[in-house]
Amino acid sequence: MRNIKLTIEYDGTNYHGWQIQPNGITVQEAIQNALTTLTKVESRITGAGRTDSGVHAAGQVANFETNSKMSAQVLQKGLNSLLPEDIVIVNAVDVPLEFHARFSAASRTYRYTVLNREYPSTFLRGTTYFCPRRINVSHAHRICNALVGKRDFSSFQCSGSERTNSICEIYEACCWSEGDLVYFQVKADAFLRGMVRSIIGTIFKLHDTNNPIAQLYDILDAHDRSVAGPSAPAHGLSLIAVKYHGDA
Amino acid sequence: MRNIKLTIEYDGTNYHGWQIQPNGITVQEAIQNALTTLTKVESRITGAGRTDSGVHAAGQVANFETNSKMSAQVLQKGLNSLLPEDIVIVNAVDVPLEFHARFSAASRTYRYTVLNREYPSTFLRGTTYFCPRRINVSHAHRICNALVGKRDFSSFQCSGSERTNSICEIYEACCWSEGDLVYFQVKADAFLRGMVRSIIGTIFKLHDTNNPIAQLYDILDAHDRSVAGPSAPAHGLSLIAVKYHGDA
Repeated sequence: MRNIKLTIEYDGTNYHGWQIQPNGITVQEAIQNALTTLTKVESRITGAGRTDSGVHAAGQVANFETNSKMSAQVLQKGLNSLLPEDIVIVNAVDVPLEFHARFSAASRTYRYTVLNREYPSTFLRGTTYFCPRRINVSHAHRICNALVGKRDFSSFQCSGSERTNSICEIYEACCWSEGDLVYFQVKADAFLRGMVRSIIGTIFKLHDTNNPIAQLYDILDAHDRSVAGPSAPAHGLSLIAVKYHGDA
Repeated sequence: MRNIKLTIEYDGTNYHGWQIQPNGITVQEAIQNALTTLTKVESRITGAGRTDSGVHAAGQVANFETNSKMSAQVLQKGLNSLLPEDIVIVNAVDVPLEFHARFSAASRTYRYTVLNREYPSTFLRGTTYFCPRRINVSHAHRICNALVGKRDFSSFQCSGSERTNSICEIYEACCWSEGDLVYFQVKADAFLRGMVRSIIGTIFKLHDTNNPIAQLYDILDAHDRSVAGPSAPAHGLSLIAVKYHGDA
């Protein structure tokens, strides 16, 4: 038995998120179908992060066990030839049997991208949130930064989470701009369901009010999703990296 | 009467090119329809370059005459609110009545983008041509450079051109890479129908043969489209800029 680690890029626009569910096609299902066709054995893959409907990935990680004799490179090429254009296997590599994409992960990093100018962009319309209202980037960065640390994030948790507790440790949270693009990036050991979009939507709401950080801590202390801001739209969000102990 | 200059970005994927034609929706038609709705007067716009079906633009220029009292900025916002997401008015400005987007243009610049690596990209799939075969960028650049000058380009002209002669002056032609992306860029006073895609397809064919430049000149001297290479796919091409005398 071998264990293969995949790094996956996908445009989430046309998927009901990562995880298999009865109501529509998901990324996990599309990859499992391709894998089953390729290896001629019913296959199951495990993903590192369960991205929501419409959320993208530039660096999702998944793994699967197989008895296939194909090299990891041939598996990658074969999957890419079978997958639709909006899912690409960026890398495939043999890993030790104990590697588990979800439980072995040390951190996940999400990036939210905003086009912050008066007119939209056609080429960025699927992957950035268009916001003509000016974002104060230095204020937004200060609020992001106040989130770093180990906390109960239940105020930023949407219903339907599978987690038994709502404690996460945010390692990095920052906001910066490059030209008309404003980036928000959050790296944590784990995320609750809908957590990044709730955080970004809350920062949009707070970033040009008085005492935004005091308000943010009040929201965290409330342990109540209804006091936080609305969720930012899914299409601005991407899972950009998953890191494992021992990764470079 | 006023004359308005528009700078336009569009994703050409779903359009039958720029120019109005009976067989399908075009970018010109979509903008004219929006303009007619906005100004309540039947409107006609003139574009600087007639991009083919599936070709994109980051910097198409067009103009139209109007008696509207709306400011150029309000016209821009109004058009953007009426246009589909794959066409965006990037800029609108009042210009002298004698300005003509096509006849006043001093140069057009087209860029062709290739994703040159072993696996495709989902986010770039609509705007870059995926080519897993390695492109020798320095060879390709030397061939591009050999095209600079005033020449008869009839060997690179597709049928259906409206031009009365096939002499164009190429001011700049270059090829460079950034990471996995290879860019080809050609700036000329004017282009024949299908000229850039024929040139790029010919460079793909010649770039790792012996004496590619001698072969290129033989092709130019033949004045015969059938001796040049096949056209490169439309979706890698974008009209990135149109310059006018007096532009900065």
